[in-house]
Amino acid sequence: MPVSDMVRSYPADLGEIDRDALVKCIEECLACAQSCTACADACLSESDEQLPMLRKCIRSNLDCADVCETTARVLSRHTGYDANITREVLQACATVCRSCADECGQHASQHEHCRVCAEQCRRCEEACNTLVTSLG
Amino acid sequence: MPVSDMVRSYPADLGEIDRDALVKCIEECLACAQSCTACADACLSESDEQLPMLRKCIRSNLDCADVCETTARVLSRHTGYDANITREVLQACATVCRSCADECGQHASQHEHCRVCAEQCRRCEEACNTLVTSLG
Amino acid sequence: MPVSDMVRSYPADLGEIDRDALVKCIEECLACAQSCTACADACLSESDEQLPMLRKCIRSNLDCADVCETTARVLSRHTGYDANITREVLQACATVCRSCADECGQHASQHEHCRVCAEQCRRCEEACNTLVTSLG
Amino acid sequence: MPVSDMVRSYPADLGEIDRDALVKCIEECLACAQSCTACADACLSESDEQLPMLRKCIRSNLDCADVCETTARVLSRHTGYDANITREVLQACATVCRSCADECGQHASQHEHCRVCAEQCRRCEEACNTLVTSLG
Repeated sequence: MPVSDMVRSYPADLGEIDRDALVKCIEECLACAQSCTACADACLSESDEQLPMLRKCIRSNLDCADVCETTARVLSRHTGYDANITREVLQACATVCRSCADECGQHASQHEHCRVCAEQCRRCEEACNTLVTSLG
Repeated sequence: MPVSDMVRSYPADLGEIDRDALVKCIEECLACAQSCTACADACLSESDEQLPMLRKCIRSNLDCADVCETTARVLSRHTGYDANITREVLQACATVCRSCADECGQHASQHEHCRVCAEQCRRCEEACNTLVTSLG
Repeated sequence: MPVSDMVRSYPADLGEIDRDALVKCIEECLACAQSCTACADACLSESDEQLPMLRKCIRSNLDCADVCETTARVLSRHTGYDANITREVLQACATVCRSCADECGQHASQHEHCRVCAEQCRRCEEACNTLVTSLG
Repeated sequence: MPVSDMVRSYPADLGEIDRDALVKCIEECLACAQSCTACADACLSESDEQLPMLRKCIRSNLDCADVCETTARVLSRHTGYDANITREVLQACATVCRSCADECGQHASQHEHCRVCAEQCRRCEEACNTLVTSLG
């Protein structure tokens, strides 16, 4: 993915943001959005016995996919930068990733897709927290 | 828009959330996402002299459209409800709406699309704040 | 929703597009995206016996919500207008709305949310088809 | 990105779809959505003289980001699979990627972000066309 190429070729000053943390966070948000969309769908394909236990997991996945996608978009824009917006969006994203990781984590031993998705949510939560911290 | 019909036909308990405030907030988020997408595009069609002054406005519009759309989606889901996520998403949405209203407001006397969009952003900010308060 | 105000305040020529059909289609796409997001979630809240029968319905709802949202965004932009893109996006949207209406329609007698959503999908399909026809 | 892990861990049959082409296409759509969001913003940061020439490029970028994101989501779902929807969404995506690649390509010699983005759009167009062909 050319995330770092796009950040590097930005024609104006990026300010004091940590570029490596920014690139990492955009990449993790995109990966997490995809994992969550796919995990929600994989949950839907589980057996009639399993499916009712996965309601909350599917809903968490759908919320997490939406918030991660929007976070990746907000982070990909630097013109007219507003640190308050970035910070609040990142905090909401870290919260929804943690919640989804916890929920998927409860099904990780039974469903491989939940295990992979929980790990991706943890990586995304961490990347959001690292970037928030670097914003000062 | 059948937002209230969909809320009314939800097959489980919605908990203590204020239904009217919920319906209102979803409707305002959708209207705001559309206004901001359209305002960004209308700004792009302004004259060569005007366009450079609208950079920050376009970027605010794009961020606001994304956050409002995601907020409408999160609010439209009630299964496995997590008040922390709803609260943080609503707060981020109120912040981005206020910022976009301020920015569009600066161009409202010159550009009708900025005037209409600023008013919509104010309505959406208010609806988010009202719903956050009702969450307790 | 200020969709018509935003279309009216666009600072350049909209070309030969039918403005009423455009406004109507944007409004129906937004309403349909919301109905489908809410219907997917309402399906998730149905009983353990019902839930397994609603797998395909939930998936159709999620696809339809995504395609309708993107269609509303593409239709809200007029700068650098490309009729081929508009036409193909509208055709994909009409197809996914028809498919989702058919699927929700099969559960309409049992689930009020599916009935409301199926009707909204039909309105959106019709609005997309009307707008495609008006593009010539 | 764990796209291939998520595809591999899907608990049901994926049918006759080419898994490698599917994974590739999802990855290219996500990368393209990000490149286009970032390129639109980078264009907004160009000089007052350059900016008016980039109107159509910004709009193409925004359309392409939205369509690629929705395509990645539709492709990430397999439950209740409908080949007609997949095919029409992929065709719309290939069209919007080609159009955006052409537009960005015209600015590639002047703006590095347009060069990187044009190449990404070409890769995504190709991945969509390959997957459409494999659908039969």
